[in-house]
Amino acid sequence: MADFSFVTNNKLKRQLDFLVEIDKMKNIFRRTVIINKSRRENDAEHSWHFAMYAMILEEYSPEHIDINKVIKIALVHDLVEIYAGDTFAYDSEGNKNKKQREIEAANNLFGSICSEQGNYLRSLWEEFEEKETAESRFANVCDRLQPLIHNYFTDGHTWREGDVSSSQVLERMDIIRTASPELWKVVTEIVDNSIKRGILRP
Amino acid sequence: MADFSFVTNNKLKRQLDFLVEIDKMKNIFRRTVIINKSRRENDAEHSWHFAMYAMILEEYSPEHIDINKVIKIALVHDLVEIYAGDTFAYDSEGNKNKKQREIEAANNLFGSICSEQGNYLRSLWEEFEEKETAESRFANVCDRLQPLIHNYFTDGHTWREGDVSSSQVLERMDIIRTASPELWKVVTEIVDNSIKRGILRP
Repeated sequence: MADFSFVTNNKLKRQLDFLVEIDKMKNIFRRTVIINKSRRENDAEHSWHFAMYAMILEEYSPEHIDINKVIKIALVHDLVEIYAGDTFAYDSEGNKNKKQREIEAANNLFGSICSEQGNYLRSLWEEFEEKETAESRFANVCDRLQPLIHNYFTDGHTWREGDVSSSQVLERMDIIRTASPELWKVVTEIVDNSIKRGILRP
Repeated sequence: MADFSFVTNNKLKRQLDFLVEIDKMKNIFRRTVIINKSRRENDAEHSWHFAMYAMILEEYSPEHIDINKVIKIALVHDLVEIYAGDTFAYDSEGNKNKKQREIEAANNLFGSICSEQGNYLRSLWEEFEEKETAESRFANVCDRLQPLIHNYFTDGHTWREGDVSSSQVLERMDIIRTASPELWKVVTEIVDNSIKRGILRP
């Protein structure tokens, strides 16, 4: 089995180990399917797409945001799922112990590299979770809008599978209402159209 | 079929169409396999992983770099492959017309959104291709190091499949020699170890 035992710089060795470890993001599958409906989307793809949403839609944050921070949040926001797994947004049982599972995962993963970088990655993840900064709010807008659009383009795949109602969707999307009024109009039209098309319960 | 015809803001409509279109990155498969060897890696995952390499290994650029620029380059550097397809790094035939295919793809893709954003995305892609800035050189370091490490951890998967020699690998990695001497040491040790382990032709 290959390893980095030949790397004498211990900090670099741990960084390389970390970069190999996070390859596991490519095997963490979300409930959302990709737009051609052929399979579920994984966390690595989702993180890239979320970062692209942030980059392209930046102007729809009424608050000033540091877009570079938002992009970094996108890249790392799901890393803890390598150990904690993906929890379906509408799974109330699974969401009960989600926080504890993710904190343990963060200790494990972010503790594996040097403390300066580990603490920085953890701070980005915590900022995303806390939704207290403009960057975090806009990151959450993109993280929620992306799967909404996927559901819209895949005949409500995840909604139907999870028997989700429009009020649950709107509740899940609620941060967009205040953090991006222009994108909120898109959300409500998608929900209305989806009900009309019979792909989302009223 | 779903679409964004209900979005009256034409700029936003084109941005949303673009974000749906680039979902196709998840179906562009590279020659490299993911580390658990179960399947090929796609461009969306690779772009995310490349961005993480840049974020974690930034300090190994002896030249000062704007890491935010490098990350953005990572996110968009392979977008043209949506229309041009992935060209295997060691395919000399396919590489002959690669440039022309990619320029046509860039015109098509970057022309689909507003000119300000389209020109910006194109400029990031061109900067990556030209390797004339410190950011571009470090981006190329990460873009080459990531699949090298995947080959090392997957028993030389792509090298064996393509009957690639160590001198071809070192030539492909050459930008790392000057753009990151510390990471170049890792490259040469990986190549030496791979020859010893019989997973790479001398």
